[in-house]
Amino acid sequence: MMASGGEPPATKVVLLLVPRVDASFHAALRERFHVLDFFASSERWPLPAFLAAAAAAPEPPRAAIVVGAGLIPVDAAFLDAVPSLRCVMCLAAGVDFIDLDECARRGVVVANSGRVFSADVADHAVGLLIDVLRRVSAAERFVRRGLWPVQGDHPLGSKIGGRRVGIVGLGNIGSQIAKRLQALGCTVCYNSRTRKDSVPYKYFTNVHDLAVESDVLVVACALNKATRHIISKDVLEALGKDGVIVNISRGANVDQAELVRALKEGRIAGAGLDVFENEPGGPGELFAMDNVVMTPHVAVFTAESMSDLRDHVVANLEAFFSGEPLLTPVLPHSPVN
Amino acid sequence: MMASGGEPPATKVVLLLVPRVDASFHAALRERFHVLDFFASSERWPLPAFLAAAAAAPEPPRAAIVVGAGLIPVDAAFLDAVPSLRCVMCLAAGVDFIDLDECARRGVVVANSGRVFSADVADHAVGLLIDVLRRVSAAERFVRRGLWPVQGDHPLGSKIGGRRVGIVGLGNIGSQIAKRLQALGCTVCYNSRTRKDSVPYKYFTNVHDLAVESDVLVVACALNKATRHIISKDVLEALGKDGVIVNISRGANVDQAELVRALKEGRIAGAGLDVFENEPGGPGELFAMDNVVMTPHVAVFTAESMSDLRDHVVANLEAFFSGEPLLTPVLPHSPVN
Repeated sequence: MMASGGEPPATKVVLLLVPRVDASFHAALRERFHVLDFFASSERWPLPAFLAAAAAAPEPPRAAIVVGAGLIPVDAAFLDAVPSLRCVMCLAAGVDFIDLDECARRGVVVANSGRVFSADVADHAVGLLIDVLRRVSAAERFVRRGLWPVQGDHPLGSKIGGRRVGIVGLGNIGSQIAKRLQALGCTVCYNSRTRKDSVPYKYFTNVHDLAVESDVLVVACALNKATRHIISKDVLEALGKDGVIVNISRGANVDQAELVRALKEGRIAGAGLDVFENEPGGPGELFAMDNVVMTPHVAVFTAESMSDLRDHVVANLEAFFSGEPLLTPVLPHSPVN
Repeated sequence: MMASGGEPPATKVVLLLVPRVDASFHAALRERFHVLDFFASSERWPLPAFLAAAAAAPEPPRAAIVVGAGLIPVDAAFLDAVPSLRCVMCLAAGVDFIDLDECARRGVVVANSGRVFSADVADHAVGLLIDVLRRVSAAERFVRRGLWPVQGDHPLGSKIGGRRVGIVGLGNIGSQIAKRLQALGCTVCYNSRTRKDSVPYKYFTNVHDLAVESDVLVVACALNKATRHIISKDVLEALGKDGVIVNISRGANVDQAELVRALKEGRIAGAGLDVFENEPGGPGELFAMDNVVMTPHVAVFTAESMSDLRDHVVANLEAFFSGEPLLTPVLPHSPVN
């Protein structure tokens, strides 16, 4: 049991390397841990100086809370800078910016967000899919610009039911997407490193063949060396001119330059994208296209998921500081999505 | 069997009173029926003159194809103008613009679109619900306006799972919406004229009580005297400031002036609207609001549903001209949604 009200133990030192954490998250951390907050530090040190000062403290940090989006890579240089670190808590499911082999070699345990975000990401993926196929955002602009009384009917959308949707990466998020698509009457098929015996969906050993048999590809895999640009020019060609890409995983799973080119040249029909190779921002060449729906990497963000994440992070860190196994450990080569 | 290639029988005369019908629909009709097309008529007669000429022909029309949206009400005056009519084929599920009692009194049978549109409307309803709760269209504008790199994080959305969604009108469309919402982890409850013993959802005898117990109200009932403005000021108040309205039925099922006022004053949280009291157009007062998603009455429109509708209309008219029962008859007071 936590003694409430008292100072957190000076030995439970946690580096917080995340730019945006809400007040309740901050409070929950500070109640239990001694927090060194890089982005809130009034000194506005450069990161190396901040890490050096932390490492040189009488009680150096044993855990770090990090987030993706390329902000602060957890690589050998980072781990060298703070040799006291024994735990990295990642506020995302995807740990592509963490060198898991290097962490393992040094005895640094890594946890990710586990299933905290899965339902929200799956909902967002389905929202993007419906939006692109049924032209919701495009129709929205049409109404808001006052074009409805002037131009009359908006172009027809495509039926969702009966669509063959190929899911790239059938982990927890992919499985939750599949469940939702089944309720919409879609035919689900998938590619992943291994066939899952527990699911009724057709398995493809590679994404190219999956694309040939799919009307829509939903990218839901982790980003790693094997999946970077897995949605390549060839895959886009295999998907074809009536095909749609939905990506809620990581921007770099898609060869964005090829995607932009295929969209501009009408070689695929549309895209629903929550993630990009250039974040924040997104590909400006798509900003005037009506067959593209773009959201700013928000698939994980709901008020409820932020509160769940807070509890999840605290529980993982408490486990770590108590010498217990992490709740959601990530090992090198372990499937995370 | 239809003899192909020959002229359609002169006795199968059909009035076509629909402004937009695609080429394949036209061809399918003209192959089988003698079509008098009001909106395509080169004379550009006023409707009364067009109907008078049709009624005075040696073979006056026995069937009419009509559509809603207040274009041409099928009332006593209309039926007086073409007394030869014995069948009204409506290209929508909702027959609110057809005086069913008057039709029944005169022996005019009425058919609607049956279940042709149900899945598409349900998909669109779910798309609007996800869009409003997860702020998809708002986030879309944020990205397209280039605000993401400038302003950083977009406001959090709300989780879909666990939301209590009240469906107003649990007919075929409402039931399909419910099925989809269950896959999203929502708790479904409903109001309809009668309790449905075959469904597991909680039943409310009136919309006010349903609103009290709901986070989101999805309006999926037919428009008639009992349902006009069923989403009233009182119901909006019962729904409350965190509540969301989704309407894919008819604009007049919602008191639009009250809805606009509630949105402007923050007395409800948001709305997803495919239908309006002023169509085409929609309420301009909402065009700058980020918590509202508006589409131009397109929930039924997909390429696939248009093709299904064509087959459905032909089948109903063939049945009528063969003296057989309609496939999807609508009787006075019969539930259509």
